[in-house]
Amino acid sequence: MSSDFSSSHSSPALGIALIGAGVVGGGVLDILKQQQHLLQQRCGHILNITAVVKRDLTLDERLTPYRDLLSNDWRSAVANPQTDIVVELIGGCTTAAECIRAALAAGKPVVTANKALLAETSNTADDILAYAATQSLPIAHEAAIAGCIPVVKTLRESLAGDSVQAMYGVINGTCNYILTAMEAEQSTFAAALEKAQALGYAEAAPAFDIDGVDTAHKLLLMTRIAFGCHVCMADIPLIGIRDLDYCDIVYARQFNYRIKLLAVAKRVANGTANGPVELRVRPAMVPAAHIMASLEGALNAVTIHSQFSGETLYSGAGAGAHPTATAVVADIVDIARRYKDKRYQSNNGGDSIADNSLTLQQHFSTPFYLRVRVLDKPGVIADIAQILAKQNISIEAINQEAIAVDTVDLIILLHESEDAKVEASIAAIMQLAAVTQPVVALPIERLN
Amino acid sequence: MSSDFSSSHSSPALGIALIGAGVVGGGVLDILKQQQHLLQQRCGHILNITAVVKRDLTLDERLTPYRDLLSNDWRSAVANPQTDIVVELIGGCTTAAECIRAALAAGKPVVTANKALLAETSNTADDILAYAATQSLPIAHEAAIAGCIPVVKTLRESLAGDSVQAMYGVINGTCNYILTAMEAEQSTFAAALEKAQALGYAEAAPAFDIDGVDTAHKLLLMTRIAFGCHVCMADIPLIGIRDLDYCDIVYARQFNYRIKLLAVAKRVANGTANGPVELRVRPAMVPAAHIMASLEGALNAVTIHSQFSGETLYSGAGAGAHPTATAVVADIVDIARRYKDKRYQSNNGGDSIADNSLTLQQHFSTPFYLRVRVLDKPGVIADIAQILAKQNISIEAINQEAIAVDTVDLIILLHESEDAKVEASIAAIMQLAAVTQPVVALPIERLN
Repeated sequence: MSSDFSSSHSSPALGIALIGAGVVGGGVLDILKQQQHLLQQRCGHILNITAVVKRDLTLDERLTPYRDLLSNDWRSAVANPQTDIVVELIGGCTTAAECIRAALAAGKPVVTANKALLAETSNTADDILAYAATQSLPIAHEAAIAGCIPVVKTLRESLAGDSVQAMYGVINGTCNYILTAMEAEQSTFAAALEKAQALGYAEAAPAFDIDGVDTAHKLLLMTRIAFGCHVCMADIPLIGIRDLDYCDIVYARQFNYRIKLLAVAKRVANGTANGPVELRVRPAMVPAAHIMASLEGALNAVTIHSQFSGETLYSGAGAGAHPTATAVVADIVDIARRYKDKRYQSNNGGDSIADNSLTLQQHFSTPFYLRVRVLDKPGVIADIAQILAKQNISIEAINQEAIAVDTVDLIILLHESEDAKVEASIAAIMQLAAVTQPVVALPIERLN
Repeated sequence: MSSDFSSSHSSPALGIALIGAGVVGGGVLDILKQQQHLLQQRCGHILNITAVVKRDLTLDERLTPYRDLLSNDWRSAVANPQTDIVVELIGGCTTAAECIRAALAAGKPVVTANKALLAETSNTADDILAYAATQSLPIAHEAAIAGCIPVVKTLRESLAGDSVQAMYGVINGTCNYILTAMEAEQSTFAAALEKAQALGYAEAAPAFDIDGVDTAHKLLLMTRIAFGCHVCMADIPLIGIRDLDYCDIVYARQFNYRIKLLAVAKRVANGTANGPVELRVRPAMVPAAHIMASLEGALNAVTIHSQFSGETLYSGAGAGAHPTATAVVADIVDIARRYKDKRYQSNNGGDSIADNSLTLQQHFSTPFYLRVRVLDKPGVIADIAQILAKQNISIEAINQEAIAVDTVDLIILLHESEDAKVEASIAAIMQLAAVTQPVVALPIERLN
């Protein structure tokens, strides 16, 4: 029995144009080659590469078998009548957008891993998605969110009868690697970043990852699908991990938490089914016993809380050539299985239009962790307590840790408090003469 | 934008016959009712209930709205021209098989949660699946394996380009509840079972769950899909949890393990891509640090190791009305999204026919945990060590725990050993006069 009733050995071959042959593209070539027979059984089509497009045409071992298909001319590759499906893996927003538009204009389904393009605030993304819809063509992008973890498919298909209440994601392998390395090696952020760069877990220009932009891109794509609404990057408050200190990780452990760069999309329970949604990306304390806390290195995980299924969790490699390529190939197979009828799943998100009246909640309330580094003088705790009291913020615990002869860290756990009031308190605390460093404030996310 | 380009507001309503209105059936009614509008947006069809079939016609609150559709005549419900999709939730093998055959004969796609029917060794399952294939109709059964966890979809679609190397599952909520209750409450198996029954986590007749039959059914379905082969229950060696003692759980902790009833399907790395596959269901020691070990209560989890994606993990509620119903509704939506063209995914497994030369490996090798309860006499350890040496089994560690004045438990960790040799050793150990109880032997599964 074959994997799909649409398949049969008389099914035509489908031509794949690979636009971009970097790490992920190379992985796609590996899989299409090594799994050729299996893929034919599973999708009912032979999948042929019709073009491999690369800016520079230098050949490596992986590309040599495709030397005759190699070019730097994406337009011809897309226009090639042998090309049925366009796989865009060049990244960036300008050429990639042109390439995807050209594919859609030529009536060819698109598979991409380009989270930046699909998430950027420019109208590009919305325009392209709308154009894809008018063309009844998919821009399949499972690979854009969390490598081989099937986040798009789960949200669109497995939870099609459900309503998402909250999503939490550890979806940037670079940040998770750095945070676990800081803990394992008791090292500073800078040292852990250097190591991550040396091992290829972090880019030479790491801001995109460590400042949370990449995580926000992924959260935006997940939100678009789960809540069927159009959000833009400006809707997602963003704090990265570069200001975290090793001591914060130690203090977190003392209170039975671990620090993760957490993407949060949470529907506020306001009694209605369509309450407003909180979106944020920032380092947070998560309960040490929760699976999300136990993720080591470059692993990703997403937990989804939904009305009927409760909490489900999905974890795996969030990056890397082959894991990400697996998601690209899965999208190719989904399209191939439906190719005969051009009856594609949209995969473009924004689909539960019943929901797209969604409003965003600007502020949020959680318990908070504060670390205030102060000169060890009498009255400091009293001053800080007074500032917090003024904001009606109640303190759950205060620990004092000696840092130097005259310097201590005050670790202050706050009961559930609104972020705005915490920010206001921090501004006031920073005015105190005894405060020697920016205050570190981390929400404590119970993940429930 | 709607969830599927096949959808449009002119799409016809689809009629759903619900055969079986127990716990899961009730959950399906809840979701179809509460999510009606969202489901229409997402699958492009209004989903109407055309019949609710129940053996006894007593109404509860949930069924009252459907009183006019209620009957005990599944044949008419299936034959009803208004019925487009048949949802079989009566369980068992006889009537369910008739019902599914009738639906297929009438050209109607089937959704079921009936793992027993699809996994039983009788030819029934293979016949029905083959018949479905000839009819080009799906027997969608995501709900049959692990509640709302998308195991079928992940294996068939997300990993369509990948090759599964190993699958490990904690996929019986009853057993996991009992094992975690034994640990949490330091209770015997019998006491934990009683509590599970009182709370509805275990049936009055619990053998099906606690002896591992249910777990083996699910493993069989997963194996059929992942490896594209036909297996039968006789291929799956089976040991349940009823002989576990609280002390085994304590000893496991001492060695940094936890005990789970584990389903294992593992391709033996023999250098070829198509090595033989080991299948087994039995209580096993898993590393305490692994996510699988941290599953509490009725949670399920499946980890899949595949050639290109590496290890991925999926966890969530493996049972319960609404989680399981979510999977049923997801299958209904998948079918509805493809209804216009009758171009269904088969979801029947047995699809990667490239693989179905698969051979089963009868024996396996892992490290082992042995617990031997003995009278505390000199020479006992020597006798046992000699028996193991005869089988060329090497000992990693021996601990001795006092149980009573004259009785001790010998906890013996064995280096990787073949199960057959361990069994032979146990048979010899049982001959020793000092041995007062059956020996407990648990494989230590590294889950990698």
